Amino acid sequence: MNRRAFAGAFAAAALIPLKAASPRIETAALRADLEALSLIGRPAGGTFESGVSRIGYSDADIAGRKFFMDLLKQAGATVRIDAAGNIFGSRPGTDNSLPPLLFGSHIDSVPQGGNFDGCLGSLTAVQILRVLNDQKITTRRPLTVVAWACEEASFSGTSLNGSRAAAGVLKPNELQMVSRGLTKAEAIRRIGGDPAKLETALIRRGTYHAYLELHIEQGGTLEREGIPIGVVDGIVSIDDYHVVVKGAPNHAGTTPMRDRQDALIAAAQLTLAVREIVMAEAGAQVGTVGHLEVSPNAVNVIPGEVQMSIEIRDLSSAKLERLAEKIRTRAMAIATETRTQISITSNGHNEAAVAAPEIQRVIEASANKLKLKTRHLPSGAGHDAQQMAKLMPMGMIFIPSIGGISHSPKELSTWEHCASGANVMLETILELAR
Amino acid sequence: MNRRAFAGAFAAAALIPLKAASPRIETAALRADLEALSLIGRPAGGTFESGVSRIGYSDADIAGRKFFMDLLKQAGATVRIDAAGNIFGSRPGTDNSLPPLLFGSHIDSVPQGGNFDGCLGSLTAVQILRVLNDQKITTRRPLTVVAWACEEASFSGTSLNGSRAAAGVLKPNELQMVSRGLTKAEAIRRIGGDPAKLETALIRRGTYHAYLELHIEQGGTLEREGIPIGVVDGIVSIDDYHVVVKGAPNHAGTTPMRDRQDALIAAAQLTLAVREIVMAEAGAQVGTVGHLEVSPNAVNVIPGEVQMSIEIRDLSSAKLERLAEKIRTRAMAIATETRTQISITSNGHNEAAVAAPEIQRVIEASANKLKLKTRHLPSGAGHDAQQMAKLMPMGMIFIPSIGGISHSPKELSTWEHCASGANVMLETILELAR
Repeated sequence: MNRRAFAGAFAAAALIPLKAASPRIETAALRADLEALSLIGRPAGGTFESGVSRIGYSDADIAGRKFFMDLLKQAGATVRIDAAGNIFGSRPGTDNSLPPLLFGSHIDSVPQGGNFDGCLGSLTAVQILRVLNDQKITTRRPLTVVAWACEEASFSGTSLNGSRAAAGVLKPNELQMVSRGLTKAEAIRRIGGDPAKLETALIRRGTYHAYLELHIEQGGTLEREGIPIGVVDGIVSIDDYHVVVKGAPNHAGTTPMRDRQDALIAAAQLTLAVREIVMAEAGAQVGTVGHLEVSPNAVNVIPGEVQMSIEIRDLSSAKLERLAEKIRTRAMAIATETRTQISITSNGHNEAAVAAPEIQRVIEASANKLKLKTRHLPSGAGHDAQQMAKLMPMGMIFIPSIGGISHSPKELSTWEHCASGANVMLETILELAR
Repeated sequence: MNRRAFAGAFAAAALIPLKAASPRIETAALRADLEALSLIGRPAGGTFESGVSRIGYSDADIAGRKFFMDLLKQAGATVRIDAAGNIFGSRPGTDNSLPPLLFGSHIDSVPQGGNFDGCLGSLTAVQILRVLNDQKITTRRPLTVVAWACEEASFSGTSLNGSRAAAGVLKPNELQMVSRGLTKAEAIRRIGGDPAKLETALIRRGTYHAYLELHIEQGGTLEREGIPIGVVDGIVSIDDYHVVVKGAPNHAGTTPMRDRQDALIAAAQLTLAVREIVMAEAGAQVGTVGHLEVSPNAVNVIPGEVQMSIEIRDLSSAKLERLAEKIRTRAMAIATETRTQISITSNGHNEAAVAAPEIQRVIEASANKLKLKTRHLPSGAGHDAQQMAKLMPMGMIFIPSIGGISHSPKELSTWEHCASGANVMLETILELAR
């Protein structure tokens, strides 16, 4: 305990990785791995800042997976691929009768994505094995590193493919979906999975002690507040709604203002109402009108119909229901006032995944040891961790994204923040695997 | 004078056409002609209420023009086609040294249009010749009936083709425009014009005494107020603007509300501001956002860019400039508040055409004689009359459109309103041609 406290105090002084006293991730080593992986799927002639296109199940993904498995093997892990194509690397503990601690992320990217989303968590997991090897540390619990297959929604718009299979929620009919010329079954087979035995990928409750994932925030909250470590409360619930506003198309010259039934006027009011209603309550909830189409969409015709999306996200499904009810009520008032008809239908609901409070506390304590400031925040984006939360206690650590940008070559984080997040991850694992 | 006053009083009692005492349009005859013309270009198996597609320069237009010229000839007129394809039918007066009175409209339609737009004015002109023949009336001034070529914007989006040639503002390079597989030159030749001699279609100032046109309102003002006759003040000026709103596309889940630069939020505010600013002043001005496109237009991405149109119309160009200035000022405030960039560029300006006050007074007096209530109103739509206003005193008479609908098979007016409008037209011509 004294040794640890001393090391933490020392690290806090300069945020420089310590040498011997306490195990620490080397910034340079983590950076070297991230840069090496970034070469696989990099645009021709590009640099690290040109981003990457390593789409799940693609040739680049297969090459990236080989690179990752080689790193795991070099770190002494026993590597296997499950029926869904997920990569697992195991390191024994001192008591192998205990359920292992599971941690990792993914290495696939969106098209023209960045080099941190998924890769940071996956390569940090490898670094942790290396540091433990270097320091000759064996944890009590066994450790299992994972890289989930095709996390991004690159295959027919379906995301979290590997982790959904592990949670038993990848539907059998998805295997027939075709994308980029392959069925999903063929795609899974391509990366070494066995779609005929997909049920063997299912992780039973009790198999693992907990799941941990380090990830970039993909938003701007940590950067804006100058906080290096985000303790994720959970992954938000998402409600999608499809809205149809029906007015009356008419001549833009001959129809007096007060005779109009302008669907776009109603849609504009509703768009602003969504923002106003979402912002009226305290909290981190968000609401977005991202898709909007006008018909007939001609300069000299009053809009007769608008179709639009409303998406709201929050950790609390109850809050989302309350917000949706307020939006519906306002929509009815707007319809009456503008003499239009507005229909709002649900287009999907994703349940929230709550991070285990006891793991949040360990993450916070680990950051405190390293004198790194933390704040709690929800994840507005989906992660494999939300599937694991169904099976075991789950925790996530965020580090700042520069400019809050993600899913873009401009998705960047500082190497110092990467190392800080990796060290909090290491501390958390040491604590949970004791 | 006594005879006329008596006739007027009698007509007012029942709105039934009088027999001998004063010349009157027969409702049944006007209806029969409108129904006969409606057969040419009617959808297969349709009825009068199915509307018509008699697109300018098309085979249906050519057949309709023949029908119309036959009617003119049967009414004793001398028919000619000018180089732009406009049809003129002349009836001598008692003093043929005087400039003739010009009146008429057009017989082409929009695709899937109605049977009153243009046809009412054109066939009423023929009815007027017939009634004068029946009553053996010769006006002092000669009379010239006109059906302008391709009034609707069916050829490459260009409208008022015949009347613009007559006003000398059909640009020579328009003749090379291709639409429906024909250049405009070929299209004009098809209907009997001579594009090589287009300059001969030019009407010089002083050629005609005045221009009159009867038309459906195409808006809902007269119907709503229960007024059968509209005295047109003029044809509005139109200012079109192209707006680009630039924000920052970002993840709809991970970007907090207050960090957003949402282009659609700015566009929605501007859309509502246009309406609010236009309605804040008394008058008949209108403002419309008819076209709006969102980019990237995905449910889960904050809109990064919106392109939209703003169109404002009024008789007064000064008012339009004032409104545009208010809209620009508001747009700058919205851009600042939403942290977006908004650019507004002019996309075209159409000058207003004012109806001659002395002709407006004659129209009003004619309606008064027939005990028909009138109101003044601008035309929000374009008409051939706006080209004639450059060359001679111009007047337009409107009758109510059922439901304010036009450019649709649902474009309808009552036969009684058609006859009332036609009789006001007849009275006005008798007065102006005396």
